[in-house]
Amino acid sequence: MKYVYLFKEGNKDMRNLLGGKGANLAEMTSIGLPVPQGFTVTTEACCKYMEEDNLSPKIEKEILDKIEELEKITGKKFGDGKNPLLVSVRSGARDSMPGMLDTILNLGMNDEVCEEFAKQIGDERFVYDSYRRFISMYADVVMNFPKEDFLDLFDEIKKVKKVELDTELTGDDLKEIVQIYKRQYKKHAKREFPSDAREQLIEAVKAVFRSWNNSRAKTYRKLNNIPDSWGTAVNVQEMVYGNRGETSGTGVAFTRNPATGEKKLFGEYLINAQGEDVVAGIRTPEDISTLKKKMPECFQEFERICNILENHYHDMQDMEFTIENKKLYMLQTRNGKRTAKAAIKIAVDFVKEGLLTKEEALLKVDASSLEQLLHPTFIAKELEKRVSIAHGLAASPGAAVGKIYFHAEDLKKAKKEGEVDMILVRSETSPEDIEGMNIANGILTGRGGMTSHAAVVARGMGKCCVAGCSEIIIDEKTKKIKLADGTILKEGDYLSLDGGTGNVYQDAISLEEAKVTGDFATFMKWADEIRTLGVRVNADTEKDAMIAKKFGAEGIGLCRTEHMFFESKRIFHFRQMICAEDEKTRKKALAKILPYQRDDFYHLFKVMGKNSTTIRLLDPPLHEFLPKTHEEVNKLANSLKISFKELKERIESLKEFNPMMGHRGCRLDVTYPEIAKMQTRAIIEAAILLENEKIKVRPEIMIPLIGDVKELKYVKSMIVEEAEEIIKNNASKVKYKIGTMIELPRACLIADKLAMDAEFFSFGTNDLTQLTYGFSRDDSEKFLEEYYKKGILANSPFTSLDTEGVGQLVKLGVHLGKKTRKDISLGICGEHGGDPKTIGFCHEIGLSYVSCSPYRIPVARLAAAQASIKANQSK
Amino acid sequence: MKYVYLFKEGNKDMRNLLGGKGANLAEMTSIGLPVPQGFTVTTEACCKYMEEDNLSPKIEKEILDKIEELEKITGKKFGDGKNPLLVSVRSGARDSMPGMLDTILNLGMNDEVCEEFAKQIGDERFVYDSYRRFISMYADVVMNFPKEDFLDLFDEIKKVKKVELDTELTGDDLKEIVQIYKRQYKKHAKREFPSDAREQLIEAVKAVFRSWNNSRAKTYRKLNNIPDSWGTAVNVQEMVYGNRGETSGTGVAFTRNPATGEKKLFGEYLINAQGEDVVAGIRTPEDISTLKKKMPECFQEFERICNILENHYHDMQDMEFTIENKKLYMLQTRNGKRTAKAAIKIAVDFVKEGLLTKEEALLKVDASSLEQLLHPTFIAKELEKRVSIAHGLAASPGAAVGKIYFHAEDLKKAKKEGEVDMILVRSETSPEDIEGMNIANGILTGRGGMTSHAAVVARGMGKCCVAGCSEIIIDEKTKKIKLADGTILKEGDYLSLDGGTGNVYQDAISLEEAKVTGDFATFMKWADEIRTLGVRVNADTEKDAMIAKKFGAEGIGLCRTEHMFFESKRIFHFRQMICAEDEKTRKKALAKILPYQRDDFYHLFKVMGKNSTTIRLLDPPLHEFLPKTHEEVNKLANSLKISFKELKERIESLKEFNPMMGHRGCRLDVTYPEIAKMQTRAIIEAAILLENEKIKVRPEIMIPLIGDVKELKYVKSMIVEEAEEIIKNNASKVKYKIGTMIELPRACLIADKLAMDAEFFSFGTNDLTQLTYGFSRDDSEKFLEEYYKKGILANSPFTSLDTEGVGQLVKLGVHLGKKTRKDISLGICGEHGGDPKTIGFCHEIGLSYVSCSPYRIPVARLAAAQASIKANQSK
Repeated sequence: MKYVYLFKEGNKDMRNLLGGKGANLAEMTSIGLPVPQGFTVTTEACCKYMEEDNLSPKIEKEILDKIEELEKITGKKFGDGKNPLLVSVRSGARDSMPGMLDTILNLGMNDEVCEEFAKQIGDERFVYDSYRRFISMYADVVMNFPKEDFLDLFDEIKKVKKVELDTELTGDDLKEIVQIYKRQYKKHAKREFPSDAREQLIEAVKAVFRSWNNSRAKTYRKLNNIPDSWGTAVNVQEMVYGNRGETSGTGVAFTRNPATGEKKLFGEYLINAQGEDVVAGIRTPEDISTLKKKMPECFQEFERICNILENHYHDMQDMEFTIENKKLYMLQTRNGKRTAKAAIKIAVDFVKEGLLTKEEALLKVDASSLEQLLHPTFIAKELEKRVSIAHGLAASPGAAVGKIYFHAEDLKKAKKEGEVDMILVRSETSPEDIEGMNIANGILTGRGGMTSHAAVVARGMGKCCVAGCSEIIIDEKTKKIKLADGTILKEGDYLSLDGGTGNVYQDAISLEEAKVTGDFATFMKWADEIRTLGVRVNADTEKDAMIAKKFGAEGIGLCRTEHMFFESKRIFHFRQMICAEDEKTRKKALAKILPYQRDDFYHLFKVMGKNSTTIRLLDPPLHEFLPKTHEEVNKLANSLKISFKELKERIESLKEFNPMMGHRGCRLDVTYPEIAKMQTRAIIEAAILLENEKIKVRPEIMIPLIGDVKELKYVKSMIVEEAEEIIKNNASKVKYKIGTMIELPRACLIADKLAMDAEFFSFGTNDLTQLTYGFSRDDSEKFLEEYYKKGILANSPFTSLDTEGVGQLVKLGVHLGKKTRKDISLGICGEHGGDPKTIGFCHEIGLSYVSCSPYRIPVARLAAAQASIKANQSK
Repeated sequence: MKYVYLFKEGNKDMRNLLGGKGANLAEMTSIGLPVPQGFTVTTEACCKYMEEDNLSPKIEKEILDKIEELEKITGKKFGDGKNPLLVSVRSGARDSMPGMLDTILNLGMNDEVCEEFAKQIGDERFVYDSYRRFISMYADVVMNFPKEDFLDLFDEIKKVKKVELDTELTGDDLKEIVQIYKRQYKKHAKREFPSDAREQLIEAVKAVFRSWNNSRAKTYRKLNNIPDSWGTAVNVQEMVYGNRGETSGTGVAFTRNPATGEKKLFGEYLINAQGEDVVAGIRTPEDISTLKKKMPECFQEFERICNILENHYHDMQDMEFTIENKKLYMLQTRNGKRTAKAAIKIAVDFVKEGLLTKEEALLKVDASSLEQLLHPTFIAKELEKRVSIAHGLAASPGAAVGKIYFHAEDLKKAKKEGEVDMILVRSETSPEDIEGMNIANGILTGRGGMTSHAAVVARGMGKCCVAGCSEIIIDEKTKKIKLADGTILKEGDYLSLDGGTGNVYQDAISLEEAKVTGDFATFMKWADEIRTLGVRVNADTEKDAMIAKKFGAEGIGLCRTEHMFFESKRIFHFRQMICAEDEKTRKKALAKILPYQRDDFYHLFKVMGKNSTTIRLLDPPLHEFLPKTHEEVNKLANSLKISFKELKERIESLKEFNPMMGHRGCRLDVTYPEIAKMQTRAIIEAAILLENEKIKVRPEIMIPLIGDVKELKYVKSMIVEEAEEIIKNNASKVKYKIGTMIELPRACLIADKLAMDAEFFSFGTNDLTQLTYGFSRDDSEKFLEEYYKKGILANSPFTSLDTEGVGQLVKLGVHLGKKTRKDISLGICGEHGGDPKTIGFCHEIGLSYVSCSPYRIPVARLAAAQASIKANQSK
């Protein structure tokens, strides 16, 4: 077992062992780039150290052996004044954990080394400044002594010396400080500061290992789902100095512009400075392009290296470099983070430049990020100047600006009066708010999680939403928001929401429309060529269907007919239907709704044309639609010719303890067959209207919440009877399919039997997740917070499909369904349908298509292509 | 394909083809008993008839051929006056459907036949009475003419003839009536009454086939889960007459006493009568024993036949017989229905008599029926005289008598004042009522199904309950019940409930205590010898545990600790705990509860001794425990030193949309670890107390609602840490196990991983059924009614485990659990644990034990034995 690797012994594929930084330093070394040499103590050494609570003599010896080899490579001596080898000791985990772990610079210094070193380079000030920094870093990182004790001393000396700036201190001053620091160290440690470079090194390595378990690192890992067991590597590297005068410097750069993707070196640097100074922001760094004039050779060398790195890594690089006396050193390289826009341009350019195949290019872009491209965004420059006033869940991306309103009714009224930009603010939304949400630019709620009503509906509408913003107090009665600092906002005040970050800003921030460049189109074309999974949209309105078609949807995978009932004209009749005491009254009310529904379907079918349009029969529990206000109840009671009290009782009797598992879905069709019949009639008659216009459409009627074969047969026969009669009476040739949603665990278990009657399955993974986990979407976020905190769950199973549990049921359903009906069409229409990870799983288990909200269509197309590519690679 | 069988061509194993009656008539024929001969038209002929909507010429010919054969056998002629063959045409389905299908007697009569026949037997009155009955039956059954038209005519004639009784009519009168009937028939039919015997026969067979689909038969089949596809057979049998004078008679008898099991002929008969007369109850029948004196030869012959039948069928028989001129004919035999008490005595006696093996005897008794033996019952004689005033669901068996109270509080107060017999009447019950339910003799609710709170808790308590009695109006405010007929009952009035039938009676009916005879003990011993499945009890109190032990429980499979929190002393602290804003307050409240819980467990452990006692940690959503009245909230707010409003808000915030899938089970332990710790402490300290008394106990700590491996690990580690500390501090050797309930579909899917940490699984099939079907127990009965009506579901999946769906998840859980941990203990503790069908399934899939309510223990023991026997038989 080897625990320490010289840079020249490693390569980029050893990331798990050497950490990200170590692997890339090794890789750069191996391709001949100017990297200060050094070695990496592996992550395995870290694990062993933590396990044994001690650094084994074997590892210690390996480290010291490597120091000797490093001496040979550099021609310098460790702990020797003549030509001292000074090193940095830095952590480097598999995945970057910026700022979480510890670093020590200038290690190897002691009094003797410094004296000689200062003589040699003729810069006492520089050497003793480095020495004092080393001592305080060591005291902090290795010994855990309070930082302030050293900082305070430094400030005192400055007072004594009557200087303002660090730079005003002389070499002698700094020499004095070193001695004072050493005394302070001794006071804490009860022994002298270690002068032995080897002791310093071993202790520093151990300290960096220990920093893996400091509390901020632990929290970071939990938040980012990084296993505790990975451990960190430690990189020991020869020091180079960018602060050795006007021919030295340091900087960071990207090989291309990470915001736009433009092929042009992008970055900044400081002359006569160390890395810390760039970060600290005391001096304003210069644009990298100015280096060309200042040090043309260095700039040329840097451009050459950038080219080599891009050619080597086949990706845009994010680099750190230092120039010491005109010599350029590379300290770090990694694939650079970028905006979605840049990601696409870079991917397309790399293909054009012959650096990537189309497949490789498609894998380079994070599918989820595409959604950014489709929503309007805040103008970045404006946003920079702003501080958010509250933070909630980034429930539905996009940016929204508008006047706040607390009631859907008020918002509708304001619209009538000419208001354009509005934001709906509510404690939580309910189906009654849908119309208001539709008019609003964005939605802000005080309660509810990523899958709360507001969040789900907003994503469905492609509308910005910040949900569960619990820091503010929303009082709908007085129409006021109280911020954490006591500020009160009232109806009509402006607010800006960032649905991508969850930030809420006071007043209006300017927006810019999303632009879809030619590269985006090219890129999506490549995705479509490769993917085998179909992509449909969850859409209930003509508008959504049109947006989705623009984004590339190949049909409607889920039309939720219940959303169609909420318009004020319809809901009254719908309520009459629900509260009817007998079939006759019920049928009368349904007859009033029929023309509306037929019209809805007519328009959806017209947009989708020959693409399949899957219409789900009424699904939610009826009491969601019930009147709430006294006035509404009264009006309804009058229309039904029953007393207020009777109606109230009827409404009460419809309430359920657990509505999610109650009287809904196909259960409504079993108890009130006339609902399914009316909806069937609306669907078939709409198709016939289009048939008369010579437009052939493909309606698919989907029965929700099926749990038993006989239940499916019962509802299906009802639909077939109604449909066939209409078709016959109209001498029509309209064709339609009947299928079912698979959303109960039981449906997955008996899918072979269901497939005898169902021509297609659509997996409703929202409900399936609820029932498989026993998590109510509406309630679980509250306690799941604790699950995330304690590391029991990494993510909400409502965001990415739980492939270990829920996914196994889906897989079983697919397997059994295909066993009975080889060519059965299989889709997924839960919220998961737009999640790239889930889409990968869907491809794997052999679904025919995914269906998602309009703004997720490009995400799904790319994710589907990526799944195809990965599957082919692993063949 | 043969569609008609002579009796001598069939046997008892041909029940599916010949129907129950036909198969037994054939069997009796084959063993030489005196059976009027005839033939059976098969159920397949019925199916063919219904399919083709016509009787095929082939079947018609077969029937007429058999009539010829019957003529030969009987030496009589069909449709011939000289020596006429008269037949009965009766339905006979696979399973008896008493009174549902149609019958025609005296078929083969016409004017000519009757004239000759009357001459021959010298009894004109008898012959023409038979003829007129035949005509009216034929008109009714074959032609569907209104019965009243004929009855009215008959009454008119009687008026004209100025007679009161049918028997006062002379032969000539009846001759006249026949002619009048025939005219009436012609009026309806527009043709003469058919005089051709063969035509009569064919039409009668068709009519009986058609009666399979009459509405009352259809309803009966739905209620009894008999498939429509079975069809009925038709038996055509030579008529014999018990009404030919003083040496004729007819009766019904059992080979043994069906109420007590006593080995003594039991039954009654009427001299000079037909079957109808016995049923009609106009004359009082005589006890069968008197036949010994009246017709000693017949009696002796009957005893001989009874012996033959018992020896042949190895079971007690229920027979119909007719004596025609001193000749005994057997018309029917079948296994007799009996009480549980009789069933056991008969089974034990048959073994003693060498007629059955123990295994056969165990299979003869319906396991479910044993529950009857354990509850007090109404004195049968008293009950006979009573008419029920309402009918609800037979939710929990037993009989209860007491004064009615509408509030648990009132009931408790009455008890304090010395009241003993009380009945709690409520629209529905909630956990707040538990104490009241415990004191009451029985519970009557106006709403809720077989799995409503009242029903489940009552069954758990072994307490009589009639639930969902919607015919009455319960007004808790005015403390009154309004019956359907307008009668008002008020607090303090007596009521009697029969939880076995769902009947409700006004006033008190006397009760008798259940007696367990020696035979019962013997019988259960046999069951225990044979069964391999363990039987535990679901018990939360010392009292229940003791009852269960008496009934043979081998441990506690489920102790629901939440029930222990409802006592008024505890609930206050428990509420403090729930509503605490911080951990400190929460812990303080828990500390108050600890001594109570420890005491609970101490007593349970003491009863169970070395038998395992499985304690489930707190399971239900917390808001179930919250204070409801203004006074309660106020008191709690004071104790918590917060305002009324604050507490109200806190209570509101605990409410959930779907509490069944909300913050409950182990989720409470994740968010409030101190609850699990307190319960662990109570369990371990109780065990240590007993250890000090030298009593070794076996606590099993069960974590509910586990859905993820990490969740299990988290809660388990918490329990282990707490338990080990207590054990160490007490220098104890107490051993305990930790396991989990498997009640989420996801738990079944990942059972292999859960078994790494769980030492036992207990399948919570109540929740598993809820989630697999997506049926909320509290809400689903409402719409499931429609499912039963429409034949979509045969039974509630909460009664018998759904082996097709839910059972497959259980099976998977068992398979995966054993894969990881070979010797894992596997139980079931849902309501299903006491259902014989489910127990059979549990045996099949390899569970270790079932756990059920105390009064179900003997049921489970027998069902487990039966499952063993059946499994061995099919090997």
